[in-house]
Amino acid sequence: MQSDWRDLRGLRSSHTRNGAGHSWDLLLAAAFVSDAQYNRNIPFRTSPGALRLYYLYNHWMMRTATYFFIFLNLSLAIFEEPAVYPLPLLVTSLLEVLCLLVFLARLVHFGAVTLHGTFWRDTKNICIMVAILLSLADLTIYGILLEYGVSSIRWSRIVRPLFLINFAESRQIRRAFRSIRNTLPEITYVFLLFMFSLLMFSLMALKLFGERNLQTAEGLPYFRNYLEIVFDLYVLVTTANSPDVMMPAFDFSSWFALFFIAFVIVNTYIFMSLFLAVVYNNYKKHLKNEIRKLAYMKRRKMVEAFNLLKEEEGEQLVVREGRWRQLVQLVAPDISNSHRELLLRISDDEQKGFVAHVPHTVGGSSWPFDTRPSSPWRGKLTFASGRAFVWAFDAIILINAIFIALDEQSPYISYAEWVFLALYVTEILLKVYTHEPRAFFGKTQFWNWFDTLIIFAALTATVLNATLKSTTKYNSQQVLDIVFILRVLRLIRIVDSFQRFRVIMNTLINIVPTMLTFGGLTLVVYCVFAIIGMELFHGKIQFFPAGSDAPHALECGNPALKDSLFARGKYCKNNFNNFASSFIVLMELTVVNQWHDILCGPTWSLGAGVGLVQPAKLYFIAFHIVMVIIIVNIFVSFILEAFFVEYSLEKSEVETAIEQKIQELGMGVQEDELQDEQLLVNMEGDEPDLEGEGGTKPQPKGLVFKIASKRYRTVDALLQRMFEAEMPPEDEGPSLEELLTLSPSAAIPRTASSGSAA
Amino acid sequence: MQSDWRDLRGLRSSHTRNGAGHSWDLLLAAAFVSDAQYNRNIPFRTSPGALRLYYLYNHWMMRTATYFFIFLNLSLAIFEEPAVYPLPLLVTSLLEVLCLLVFLARLVHFGAVTLHGTFWRDTKNICIMVAILLSLADLTIYGILLEYGVSSIRWSRIVRPLFLINFAESRQIRRAFRSIRNTLPEITYVFLLFMFSLLMFSLMALKLFGERNLQTAEGLPYFRNYLEIVFDLYVLVTTANSPDVMMPAFDFSSWFALFFIAFVIVNTYIFMSLFLAVVYNNYKKHLKNEIRKLAYMKRRKMVEAFNLLKEEEGEQLVVREGRWRQLVQLVAPDISNSHRELLLRISDDEQKGFVAHVPHTVGGSSWPFDTRPSSPWRGKLTFASGRAFVWAFDAIILINAIFIALDEQSPYISYAEWVFLALYVTEILLKVYTHEPRAFFGKTQFWNWFDTLIIFAALTATVLNATLKSTTKYNSQQVLDIVFILRVLRLIRIVDSFQRFRVIMNTLINIVPTMLTFGGLTLVVYCVFAIIGMELFHGKIQFFPAGSDAPHALECGNPALKDSLFARGKYCKNNFNNFASSFIVLMELTVVNQWHDILCGPTWSLGAGVGLVQPAKLYFIAFHIVMVIIIVNIFVSFILEAFFVEYSLEKSEVETAIEQKIQELGMGVQEDELQDEQLLVNMEGDEPDLEGEGGTKPQPKGLVFKIASKRYRTVDALLQRMFEAEMPPEDEGPSLEELLTLSPSAAIPRTASSGSAA
Repeated sequence: MQSDWRDLRGLRSSHTRNGAGHSWDLLLAAAFVSDAQYNRNIPFRTSPGALRLYYLYNHWMMRTATYFFIFLNLSLAIFEEPAVYPLPLLVTSLLEVLCLLVFLARLVHFGAVTLHGTFWRDTKNICIMVAILLSLADLTIYGILLEYGVSSIRWSRIVRPLFLINFAESRQIRRAFRSIRNTLPEITYVFLLFMFSLLMFSLMALKLFGERNLQTAEGLPYFRNYLEIVFDLYVLVTTANSPDVMMPAFDFSSWFALFFIAFVIVNTYIFMSLFLAVVYNNYKKHLKNEIRKLAYMKRRKMVEAFNLLKEEEGEQLVVREGRWRQLVQLVAPDISNSHRELLLRISDDEQKGFVAHVPHTVGGSSWPFDTRPSSPWRGKLTFASGRAFVWAFDAIILINAIFIALDEQSPYISYAEWVFLALYVTEILLKVYTHEPRAFFGKTQFWNWFDTLIIFAALTATVLNATLKSTTKYNSQQVLDIVFILRVLRLIRIVDSFQRFRVIMNTLINIVPTMLTFGGLTLVVYCVFAIIGMELFHGKIQFFPAGSDAPHALECGNPALKDSLFARGKYCKNNFNNFASSFIVLMELTVVNQWHDILCGPTWSLGAGVGLVQPAKLYFIAFHIVMVIIIVNIFVSFILEAFFVEYSLEKSEVETAIEQKIQELGMGVQEDELQDEQLLVNMEGDEPDLEGEGGTKPQPKGLVFKIASKRYRTVDALLQRMFEAEMPPEDEGPSLEELLTLSPSAAIPRTASSGSAA
Repeated sequence: MQSDWRDLRGLRSSHTRNGAGHSWDLLLAAAFVSDAQYNRNIPFRTSPGALRLYYLYNHWMMRTATYFFIFLNLSLAIFEEPAVYPLPLLVTSLLEVLCLLVFLARLVHFGAVTLHGTFWRDTKNICIMVAILLSLADLTIYGILLEYGVSSIRWSRIVRPLFLINFAESRQIRRAFRSIRNTLPEITYVFLLFMFSLLMFSLMALKLFGERNLQTAEGLPYFRNYLEIVFDLYVLVTTANSPDVMMPAFDFSSWFALFFIAFVIVNTYIFMSLFLAVVYNNYKKHLKNEIRKLAYMKRRKMVEAFNLLKEEEGEQLVVREGRWRQLVQLVAPDISNSHRELLLRISDDEQKGFVAHVPHTVGGSSWPFDTRPSSPWRGKLTFASGRAFVWAFDAIILINAIFIALDEQSPYISYAEWVFLALYVTEILLKVYTHEPRAFFGKTQFWNWFDTLIIFAALTATVLNATLKSTTKYNSQQVLDIVFILRVLRLIRIVDSFQRFRVIMNTLINIVPTMLTFGGLTLVVYCVFAIIGMELFHGKIQFFPAGSDAPHALECGNPALKDSLFARGKYCKNNFNNFASSFIVLMELTVVNQWHDILCGPTWSLGAGVGLVQPAKLYFIAFHIVMVIIIVNIFVSFILEAFFVEYSLEKSEVETAIEQKIQELGMGVQEDELQDEQLLVNMEGDEPDLEGEGGTKPQPKGLVFKIASKRYRTVDALLQRMFEAEMPPEDEGPSLEELLTLSPSAAIPRTASSGSAA
């Protein structure tokens, strides 16, 4: 995002500097290149104004603002009717209208950037417009009805997550949804088969146990009603009522245990694995397709940029070096000289002074090589990156762990805390001093960031606590809680000292960015279900703090719950009374255990249910299918895939073109080989210019690029790189040939159609 | 197994028929070939007596007997001390000695067949011997001590599952164990990291909740003791105490829910998926290796057989057609003419009258093509395989389902049952009549077998029940239960009428044989844990039937359990009082839910536990790690892999050499294309001889081989076939070349070494 801003600045300055005619294709090419770098796909209009709008659209501030309003819109549920923190209706309504206006503006902006046909053909845009209209209509109706004293349902709140899904920035979430949509047909067949098996087993259970007059542990009739059996056995599939549902039959005869064993094997173990298999298989297939599409799209954009810039040179169509430099200046104005020269050497293989072909893959947007000048202090305090130093601090962490486990009351221990803090701060300062601040706080230095944040937060909190204590004589419990958590978190650092654990931890850290996608997905599903849940079950259950003398305090304010498992388990706080509680109840349902008990409350308090079908049961089964069977399985698939990618990467090296070139030139030093030094140390001299000395082999003390290790890359990037490495030359052959022969002007309509196809 | 018996017969007859010198290498080659067909690897000795012993060793009766005694030995636990059906000690001891003698005899037999070096180098054999010695020693000591009135522990009972693992027939179970062993190192690292995370979260919980004086729903102190917190959070990882463990903290402050949400996400979702990823990855890797090894071994055996039979023909070393026919006569005396001629045509590509090279892959032991003559009745009652017929019976099944769900008491419904039975019997008879019995009951006709068994068992049981009712005026409840189950099972048939479901069902059926392996694995683990459990917890908990007036009947005969969740849930029958109950408790622990409650009983009744560490907790955690983290994950991996193999098979055709040849000759009809006809119908004429008419293209009505569809194959066979199809020719190059240049006599020591290496 940072670089977009720079793009814009670069764009403006070059725009004034150069003649308009000359810069125009350069600008367009730059737009193509930066579009490809971010894997975006906006088939933009081709006037200079539209191009400026395009850059503005992708400005990081605009994007952040969009996200801000999306989350503001979603979080309105906290302040609306069953509110955690109530706000007057007027305020929330005005906020909602504001959000909707922002969304509309964003959409109009997008429409101004893209071609008309593409804009209207994109279901995303239609979807957003319908959502805005629906929300406005609902808000109006609700307001009018309220004016006449009629309280209606704010049904349009379910529509809100659509904004999170459909704005162009949420590519990952949309991809997850597409993946789900593609999985649905296959999952449906397995689900039908599973339901068939469930119905069969229920029928068997009815026949076997129905006429034996058995009773459950609560003294209720056992397995008499077919629909109740189906539900009980569905709960058994999730293992939530595991031994309980079996006990009456088992007590009657040991042989009946065989029925339940068969049931669990078939439904819990085999069918649930089947769901995972189907979801995983589809997820993988889908992921590959998406990545392939992205890679091809990127290549096509490159071709288009090349076509815009090409000039005749003898018989070839080439991009001359000067133009190339101008382009790089535009797209990435602040990369280092060596980086630029290296890129040129990759593009201009034989050093003829021009780029004769479209580069196959020019890495992503990030420069993975650390080429900043070496720290001037290096050598003075080298012990801070030595083994003994690391081990000493590992020992200190271990001692600290023991101190943390000890009782807090003793004053000596609270003094010890200051000692530890001082030690940690010293460690960080020493390391920063040894390795030069910019290297220490490099983008990929996860642990350094982690350490520094944890330690300084702890320091701040401890000082704050000590101040509060000395002034008010009491510890602030909230601050202390935070201090405790920070102290314990600090211990995680020890994991990084073991090579084996580090590998696993790195994979976990790699997963985090994509895990946020699942966070988004879960948020969408939770929002929808929480809003429905609040409408259905709001206020049925009350929570009273311990010692309350309200009537029915022990029965959650609902006499119908007397003696129920729900009240006995003190589950009163598991209710749908506001957005936050709903989220926590849904979380408990995702974990699955005891969900039939949690659901007892709402069911009973709805009375005897609406006829045979109780809405609570349907609600919870629907949630289980969506969340556990589909989304949790996708999450598991995702983690499985991430690990398999890591495993296969360990075996086969996938190098980018840049890394290959560096290796070819003999200037690469694998970062992993430097592991013992803990930090990246720069060995580049004083920015030597490669230009002109192409043939010379580098001296041992010359320019050395450090190739970043495979740490801290996202799974997506890894997969994309793997696919690009695999992409066969003949695969792109025809389309590339076709594209290369296109005239620069013809390239743009071509983009539009390709964009809509993707 | 059938074919082994035939081998032996064939061996004897050919032995008397031919000159001894001539038949000797033929016999040895036949042994190699049949060895390779079954993927066995016994580097046998090379005297005619040893060869006869070898055939005897592999006789199906010998194998069945071995399995019988293995299971007898295991099932002794049912009759021994904490017995389900008590038998005097003398009887069980004698039975055990008998079993041990049988095992010893089997081992001696194996020793007589194999080469000495190989025998002693094989840990399997050493293992069996040690197990026999340990069992005998334990039995003797126990007997002597009992004589002096001292009752000791029969510890050697844990050793018994070793026999199931180590006898040569249990290749699959051993492979599963090897897979586990190979997974252990990697799993250990993940497990250590997981434990670290658990300990960290526990420390945080201690600091956050320890001094707030919270109480659980039972009024016990909440999160005070570090070890108890660790255990509670371990239980939370399995989600068994999901909302309960959170409620006190959540009631205190809603923010604390975040702690538990973070815990569940990190430990339950991420780490548990990680375990699955590691197990699956290793399982897959290991499976591939094993299959590769088997495929190479098979090829090598073929080479050895070729070397034994080869003669000089010009410059080549070849096997002449006559000798080849003799060999086939020996190995598979009753295959059809067309099958034999086809095999010859594959081996003798250019029809020169000799086999010039080792065949790459000659399929497995089964002949997948149906070449029996067509039914003489076909055409008369074709409607029985028509669509209308199938639909009519689907409708009948649906109506039957409704009748089953209705009340049984009405006499009309029990009459209807007879009508349905009559209809089903008619259906089967019609189908048998139309399709000819041998085709109808073909090996791959799973559904036909299923139908027939279910219907005739139901018929028998219903008749039996009617007889009993008319004589005793009462229904026999046991017979009725069976009738009910059979009636419901009958409904499964409807699944086969939907193409989509059929695909899923076929995969499930394919999985069944290998699932038995996991049955074996689970049996071994359950046996070990059941025996330990019985020693530790035997008699601590009593079960009294409802209405018993024994003291403490409601507290499971143990006053310490008063008011416990264990007694309240009526879990008294979940105890370790005998082998059968132990198995059911272990099953409940595998399902995981409520396991901390089930464990409460034994824990409390052991008193305050031995110091801080309560044996029950350790026992249950150990079981959880072994069973749920490792074995259930392997099971899931296995199902995942089976499905992925099915999926990839759907895309890429993997053909055996035989199928390729048939396709080449244009005589193949894909069975799948005949699907609508429901049954395999034979189109072969009257066994025409292929010999001599090699060049003629087959006439439309000539010899047609039906290529079996991909139904009903085991995953192993599929994988092996896939690997063989992939096996690059240059891969086997060197070793094959090396083997081919060996003289026939040198081939045997070679086998010995190759056998021990594999």
